This record gives sequence, structure tokens and C-alpha cells, in this order.
Amino acid sequence: MQIVSLSKDISLKRSVEMGNAEQLNTVRLVLADVKNRGDNAIKEYSEKWDHVTLHNFRISKAEIESAKDKFDPQLKRDLEEAAHNIRVFHEKQKRLSYEVDVKNGSFIGQRVNPLDSVGLYVPGGSAAYPSSLLMNVIPAQVAGVERIVIVSPPNDQGALPDAVLVAASILGIEEIYKIGGAQAIAALAYGTESIESVDKITGPGNVFVALAKREVFGVVAIDMIAGPSEIAIIADETAYADEVAADLLSQAEHDPMACPILLTTSDFFAHEVAHEVEKQLITLPREKIARAAVEKFGKIYVAETIDGIIEAVNKLAPEHLEIIANNSHDIAQKIRHAGAIFIGRYSSEPIGDYFAGTNHVLPTNSTARFSSPLSVDDFIKKTSVIYYTKETWLEHAPKIARLARMEGLEGHARAVESRGWTKEMDQS
Amino acid sequence: MQIVSLSKDISLKRSVEMGNAEQLNTVRLVLADVKNRGDNAIKEYSEKWDHVTLHNFRISKAEIESAKDKFDPQLKRDLEEAAHNIRVFHEKQKRLSYEVDVKNGSFIGQRVNPLDSVGLYVPGGSAAYPSSLLMNVIPAQVAGVERIVIVSPPNDQGALPDAVLVAASILGIEEIYKIGGAQAIAALAYGTESIESVDKITGPGNVFVALAKREVFGVVAIDMIAGPSEIAIIADETAYADEVAADLLSQAEHDPMACPILLTTSDFFAHEVAHEVEKQLITLPREKIARAAVEKFGKIYVAETIDGIIEAVNKLAPEHLEIIANNSHDIAQKIRHAGAIFIGRYSSEPIGDYFAGTNHVLPTNSTARFSSPLSVDDFIKKTSVIYYTKETWLEHAPKIARLARMEGLEGHARAVESRGWTKEMDQS
Repeated sequence: MQIVSLSKDISLKRSVEMGNAEQLNTVRLVLADVKNRGDNAIKEYSEKWDHVTLHNFRISKAEIESAKDKFDPQLKRDLEEAAHNIRVFHEKQKRLSYEVDVKNGSFIGQRVNPLDSVGLYVPGGSAAYPSSLLMNVIPAQVAGVERIVIVSPPNDQGALPDAVLVAASILGIEEIYKIGGAQAIAALAYGTESIESVDKITGPGNVFVALAKREVFGVVAIDMIAGPSEIAIIADETAYADEVAADLLSQAEHDPMACPILLTTSDFFAHEVAHEVEKQLITLPREKIARAAVEKFGKIYVAETIDGIIEAVNKLAPEHLEIIANNSHDIAQKIRHAGAIFIGRYSSEPIGDYFAGTNHVLPTNSTARFSSPLSVDDFIKKTSVIYYTKETWLEHAPKIARLARMEGLEGHARAVESRGWTKEMDQS
Repeated sequence: MQIVSLSKDISLKRSVEMGNAEQLNTVRLVLADVKNRGDNAIKEYSEKWDHVTLHNFRISKAEIESAKDKFDPQLKRDLEEAAHNIRVFHEKQKRLSYEVDVKNGSFIGQRVNPLDSVGLYVPGGSAAYPSSLLMNVIPAQVAGVERIVIVSPPNDQGALPDAVLVAASILGIEEIYKIGGAQAIAALAYGTESIESVDKITGPGNVFVALAKREVFGVVAIDMIAGPSEIAIIADETAYADEVAADLLSQAEHDPMACPILLTTSDFFAHEVAHEVEKQLITLPREKIARAAVEKFGKIYVAETIDGIIEAVNKLAPEHLEIIANNSHDIAQKIRHAGAIFIGRYSSEPIGDYFAGTNHVLPTNSTARFSSPLSVDDFIKKTSVIYYTKETWLEHAPKIARLARMEGLEGHARAVESRGWTKEMDQS
């Protein structure tokens, strides 16, 4: 890993091009085709890209039962405990409706409602990502969303991984379709004969999924389109180089575009970590991916002071931030911008990916300056309510009419004034 | 206004094309030019489009004082009262950070921080929109945003309307630039020699402003890009036709693309309102705009039952919904999807535009199914915090490593396991 002095022009921004023109064209064709031809189009794309002939898209109860029977009971308990932790953390994010009383019996308020329906894309193919399912479904459940749909691409036997079905079953989710790619996004956005459309689509996917989500945005809501993973570690000489190196590599192994960086006040420690990274890379199963990330985007910044590092990190707004130093808690208090902060030696980043309870869907590419982790807020929406009685209207109508006329909106003024003083009936 | 029977395929969706290719090209050129040449580029565009030569972009204290001196004291009190109401309503939206204790001294939490800086675009030119300033600035202030910047295009004397400066002064906002169009958005997104960039841009504008906001999205955050105004009114035969017609026109006068609709169970009432709309249109100063909206998008739906109307409105998810019926409060309880609900005869829609305290920035084009009014939430962001002690780590590390390996992420498992059992030092 390259070691450099910390300077002012530090940046996490990589120009992440999302797909090329040809991929976008393909996605647009698929979206239009599924919109027009529904289930038949999906069947054809599943044959073409997933190499399976599907008679039903929906996972049956028998498939779920069979997955549960085969699944390692230890892992099932691990998933259950993780789900419990995630639920406890997200329960605290629930919002309540409120009203503000106005005199004379009037009130204004904000009503909080869950979305009616959401669709979650779980990436698949060769690997299984049950953690992604937990992280997306649980906030939606806590929000009170009634209909939660899962789509995930099948393997070449036309099946979904047991781990995904078991995770869904732990959460009580039963509407699961074994379809993937842009065709799955199209089904969720437009609906087909056998799949009803949803109001919002969340969850990560490959470039075709990401492009499709961006295209259907507006028809439905989508979550953020996450960029490659990032980790910044603040460490002083009290940290262990092997542990810091292992944590850097845990993010590097996600993606050749991942960005693992260390910021330290110790030149000696910087060299120790660089050495450890090389050593650990060699035995890593995903060495090729991790090495690409380390060589292209990995960096160790050596700074004069911790204050300089804090300033730099607030500029970076990294997705993940670990702080392993003498005064980790104090440093954490000074960080304004990060997706998630892991404090102290024992808070290794994967704890948040799988288990602690916080959400692992986090803002990347410095957007933590203005964006937040996925939360219950992403599955609710608010409606304002205004109730004015005759007395309140009488008191304020002249002011409202004046303000409207100041903005040149005579129709607004007349509307407010139209409630006649002389009409007999009073219904309010 | 056209009177039709309520049917299943009711929709508010108009295909609203945001600009053409030529406009988009212009916007991209302006953005790149301001990014490269800064203040000089802005000066040139101000000369070209606003027809003013600016020596300073920033509004001076003298300009604000002069605006205050000239301004109608009555209107100033109206603005102050509106600002107070808006602040009281939005104060209730404040979020608190929270922590969840985990045993052995560990915790996980969510920290809430305001954005560092936001820029608000106030549309201008011939008209003044102080209400837009109040609705965007106050939620940001309640959120705790430290730096709030206003940009607004000057008139041909190089000045901003007194009403805008007075509204800013009521809120204590001092960083105001008399620049507009795509060049103002560029300045806020990229910064120039004299204007520091911000983290988020909110506020409405013309097509160039909307296109520019969409282009800089990602560099900075933006608010929703609002479509033309909509109003749906549910009214039975107890409502007054002249009042309902006036409220329909209050939204129609905004934009030829605005959508004013009435849903009623009374065929007689439908005809009364249609007649009243025609009658009132003739004397409306903005008749031409309102007539275009009424003729193109205005409709009166006659339904068999109120339940049928409620179902249709939940499908429409209108920006504004008025309910003027015998049992308005009961009906309001059954509406799941709307930007704002105005209950009863005396809650005419402009009350919410100017005065009641709720926000007038609302989701359009049926997006109220999944979007919310502008609120304090739009000016904060959250950071997750994870702190595990050695004991907590010891207890859970094996589970986390198992879950990581199940997903094929060996590097994650090794990171968690790297905290050695045998190392002497314990720093946490």
C-alpha cells in the first residue's frame, strides 16, 4: 500500500461510471418489453440470462420448507440473533404522527404512514446474501409496510440459495420470486399478470439492476444506488498492524473499485500496516479483487496530528470509519460526517455488516455529508393535515389574502376570501 | 370543466417533460463554465440573461435595511406570524440521537447531525416569493444547519424584491446572492472565488434551474424536483359550489400544466361547480394560465359512493387534497396517500401555502405514495455508531465469522477473528 503525507486535497471520489451506453440500451429494451408483454417477457429473459425455464416465478411453501430442513441449525440461530439485533436497533427509529393545536378548535399535524408495498432485490447467482435481505426487510417491517416482496435471480437449477429462503422465513416473508436482472426491476415497477407492482424498490444488484432502478425512478421510489465499498481507519501507535490490515482487506475484498485507507500519526505504524496488508493478501481467497482495490485506491496517510486527521475524515465522509486510538470515543465525537463509526479495537467493521444491529446499507462516495444509512425513514412517508374552524379562518383570512396578493396570486386570495360571511350554513 | 363518471383508470400523471435537449446542453455548458471560470463566468451570464452588470453578487446590509424601511409594516407582521407558525410546526420534527445498550458495556447508536450548509434558490424576476423562502429556510434552521445561503435572480435594476430581503431578515439570513439560473446552481454546487459551495440545494426554479439541479445531484444533494401543482377536492352536496370553484382555480392559476379536479357524489353539484369555474375564470387576473389548466387537465368526477372516491384518491395520491363533506374528518382518516389534506369548508388550500405552518413544498405527480412534504428530515443526516468491548466481541465473533463465511467473504471473517486472544495489551 502506498504511504503518503496527509494533504488538503484528500478525496474519496472515484469516477464510478455506472454502465455503458450499450448496457443502458439493453436495460431500456428489457424494461419496455416487460411492461408490454409481462410474464412472457420475463420467462424469455430468465431463459436467456439465468439459463432456466421457469413455469412459476414464485417460490412455493415446499421450497421454503425444504430449505429450512437442509439448513445448518447453528447458522439459522446466528441469522435469528442478527435479525433480533437489527430489529431492536431499528425499532427506535419509528416515527409518531403529531398534531399542533391552534386556538378555536383548529389544528395542524403530520401523519406518518408506511408505504403500501416494497420490493427488495437480493443479489444472487453463485453467492447468497441473506444479510442483505435482513438489512432491507427489517426496517420495512418496523415501518409497518404490509406487502414486502423479494426478487432474486435463481441458480442454474432454477433455485434460490437456502440461506436466502431461511432468512426470509425467519422474517415471515412469503412473497418471493426467483427472477433477477432488469426484468425483475421491471416486474416490480410495472407489474405483470402474476406479479403486482410495488411503490418502492430497494437492495443492491449488478450494473443492469442499478441502471434499471435508475430508469424506473419516478414510477416507483428507489433507495440510493450504492457505490463501491469504502473504509477509512484512524489508528495511532497503540493499534495492532495485523488487525488494521485485516479490516482494510475486509472491505477491499468486496470490489476491485473498493477504497481502503488508513490515517495515522505514526510513520512506523504506517509501514507495519503496509507490510501486513501484503502478507495477508497472499492467503486471501478473494486476493485478486482485494489486491486490485489496494493497489488502485488503497492509501496510508501519515499526518502530524490527530486533529488534522479528523479534519480530513470530515471532508472524506467515508462509508465506514474505524477509530482505534488512545482516545477513540473523543475522536468519534468530533466526526460529523461518516456512514457508520466503529469505535475501538474490538469494533471490527464486519460486526456492523452482519450482526450488531445497525444497517449495513450506507452512503458511499462522500455522500455521508448529506445522506444517511438505510432506516425506517426510508419506508414511511408523511402527510400534512390542516383543519381550520370558522373562527380561525375569520381571524386569519385577511392576512393570508394579503400575502397571496403580494405574490401576485389573486386566485389564492379569492379562494380564502370566498367563504362568505353571509352564508347561513356552517359546515366545518 | 369536463364532467365524467369516476372510473378505475383515474390518474394524475401528466407526462411532464423537463426541458429539451437544447436547454440541457445550455445548462451543461453553463455548469462547466462556472466550474472552470468561477465569478467571471457568473458575471457574464448575469449580463446575458438577467441584463445586469454585477460588481458584487452579495446583497449588502444597506440593501436589506433599505428594503425593511420601504416595506409595508402590515405585510411584515403577516410574514412574521407565518414564520412563527411554520417554526412551531417544524420544531416537532426534530430528531434525537439514540443509543441502544448492549451488555458488557457495549452500545450501538444513531447520531443525528444537521447538514453543514445548504443553498436555497428563490425564484424571482418579475414576481417575489417570500413564502418560498420561509418554507425552505425554517426547516433548515430548525435542523440546526449553520450556513444557509440564498440565491435569487435580480430584476433589471440588479436588485432583489423587498419582500424577499425582508423575509430573509426576519429569519436572520445574511448570506444572499443576487444571482439566478443555472449559473447560481453551479456556484452553489462547485463554489467560486466569492461563493463557497454548499452540501444541499433546495427550492423551486424555472426549467434551467431544475435541469441544473438534476445535473449537479451527487456532487451535492437536492430536494425533489416538483412538478406542476395539483388539487383534488372531495365534496358532497353540503359544500358551496362557488367556494370549491375558487379553490380549484387557486391551483389552476399556478401553471398551464396544473391539475385541478373535483370528486363528488352529486351530479347536480358537479354542474354547479363547472358553471362557477367558468364564471370566476373571466375575472381572474391570471385567467389565461388558469383556463389552460382547467381545459387541459381539469376534471369533475361523479361517483356513486364516497368509498369509491376515497379509493380513487388513494390511487391518485394528490399533492393537495381538500375534503368538504358531511363527515370530512372521517374521510380524512381513510386517506393514506396525499401531500397535504385540508379538512372542512374553512381550510381553503392557500392557508397551507402561506400561513398555517405546514410546509408548502409537497410531492406531486402521485409521488405522495412514497414521498413526503419538505421537512426538518431533509436537512439532517444520521450516522450509525458501533462500540463493542472485548467481552462483547469474545461472545459474538464466532457467529459473525460464520455468517461472513456463509456469504463467501473470508476476509470479513478473518478481520473479526484477528483480535488475538493472546495479545497482552487491551485497548478498547
